[in-house]
Amino acid sequence: MPIAIEVAASIPLFKDFDEASLAKVAGLMSSRTYLSHDIVMRKGEQAENLAFLLNGKLQVVDLSEEGREIGIHFILPGAYFGELSVIDGQPRSASVVSVKLSEVAFLPSTHARELIFHHPLVAKRLMTHFAQIVRAASSQRTLLSIPNAFQRVFAQLQTFVKDSKEGQVIEGLPKQHEIAIMVNTSRETVSRAIHTLMKLNIVEKQGTVLIVKQPERLKQAATVGVDETSLKK
Amino acid sequence: MPIAIEVAASIPLFKDFDEASLAKVAGLMSSRTYLSHDIVMRKGEQAENLAFLLNGKLQVVDLSEEGREIGIHFILPGAYFGELSVIDGQPRSASVVSVKLSEVAFLPSTHARELIFHHPLVAKRLMTHFAQIVRAASSQRTLLSIPNAFQRVFAQLQTFVKDSKEGQVIEGLPKQHEIAIMVNTSRETVSRAIHTLMKLNIVEKQGTVLIVKQPERLKQAATVGVDETSLKK
Repeated sequence: MPIAIEVAASIPLFKDFDEASLAKVAGLMSSRTYLSHDIVMRKGEQAENLAFLLNGKLQVVDLSEEGREIGIHFILPGAYFGELSVIDGQPRSASVVSVKLSEVAFLPSTHARELIFHHPLVAKRLMTHFAQIVRAASSQRTLLSIPNAFQRVFAQLQTFVKDSKEGQVIEGLPKQHEIAIMVNTSRETVSRAIHTLMKLNIVEKQGTVLIVKQPERLKQAATVGVDETSLKK
Repeated sequence: MPIAIEVAASIPLFKDFDEASLAKVAGLMSSRTYLSHDIVMRKGEQAENLAFLLNGKLQVVDLSEEGREIGIHFILPGAYFGELSVIDGQPRSASVVSVKLSEVAFLPSTHARELIFHHPLVAKRLMTHFAQIVRAASSQRTLLSIPNAFQRVFAQLQTFVKDSKEGQVIEGLPKQHEIAIMVNTSRETVSRAIHTLMKLNIVEKQGTVLIVKQPERLKQAATVGVDETSLKK
């Protein structure tokens, strides 16, 4: 199904496009609906399209040789994906599956490359996004170099901390098994690490939000660990 | 010191530029010489230039909060560096130091951005390079998720393997402490892992080259480990 100009206009990568450019790109795209658990993109395949999530939620699934899941990355509405293969012509680096009913729009690779390399606004947006990915990968690499699993969990929690009216908080904390995958440890270790922080009154759970009551001690926990002997069992 | 057109022409990012474009970019650049151990770029600083190594050798130095070195990455002649900050306006993500006498050319950020976003050939080269970096970071993330340190060393060795007339070989093997930093382990573990492979006759050292005598067993060692009980002490 071709997509409407208004839909193309809602895609951030095309923000500030004039009417003619929007009409052109919308005319080149097509959309498709995926049910939960459908495979949208398959690792190893050749790239035929640059993809955009119009609505729903997708997950990037990358597995190790032995089938363990590596990293956790979701695709949210408005985002483009599959750009690596469109750019370098190499096979897809990971699979993408739908987490719930999702609508995805596709722009054929030839047109996508034309747009990416010849349109300064698009080039700038893609490269700024790449710069963010490279910086994030580098931070995660630093985090994974921490030998102690508890400290890795604490350091990962620190990356989620945001300032709010109530002080420092973590909203939308990922699930324990998701954090476990991010920091190379078991779900049980994540559970024990978070409970240790709660027992030490460094964080407090209020509904779905984690309040960081002692930000300095969380920072210290991430860099030098916690002294568990101070815990009364 | 401004740079000559011939020097600009030797930079891969400017390959296939016409004479006028080369003259223009050369006129905007300046070069500087660095002695061994000089700091070329400092983490946290604002970006004023896109940099190019004309000759010599540089090392990207990224340290954890506690001062441990993260990753090992060298910059070789012809390469550009410092592009992240030029693109996203954020501070430098790592420091760069000279390993030996080196000459570096600089293109001011404003001109670099104009070139990067408005010149399709340059945009394509930069994005292809970013795609490679993202793919490599993702592979390294997979490798670091292997819990066993010996297996991480074996998996890292596998990434160095090249086909040659003598079969599969590893040329220019990084130093043991460099491999240790790449795979989050100690130099001693790297040493023991490589010696185990030699004892099992999976690899053999011939001068500066490591011959992979049993490629299948190296692959197996990386995925399921080695059976050390088969080793006669």
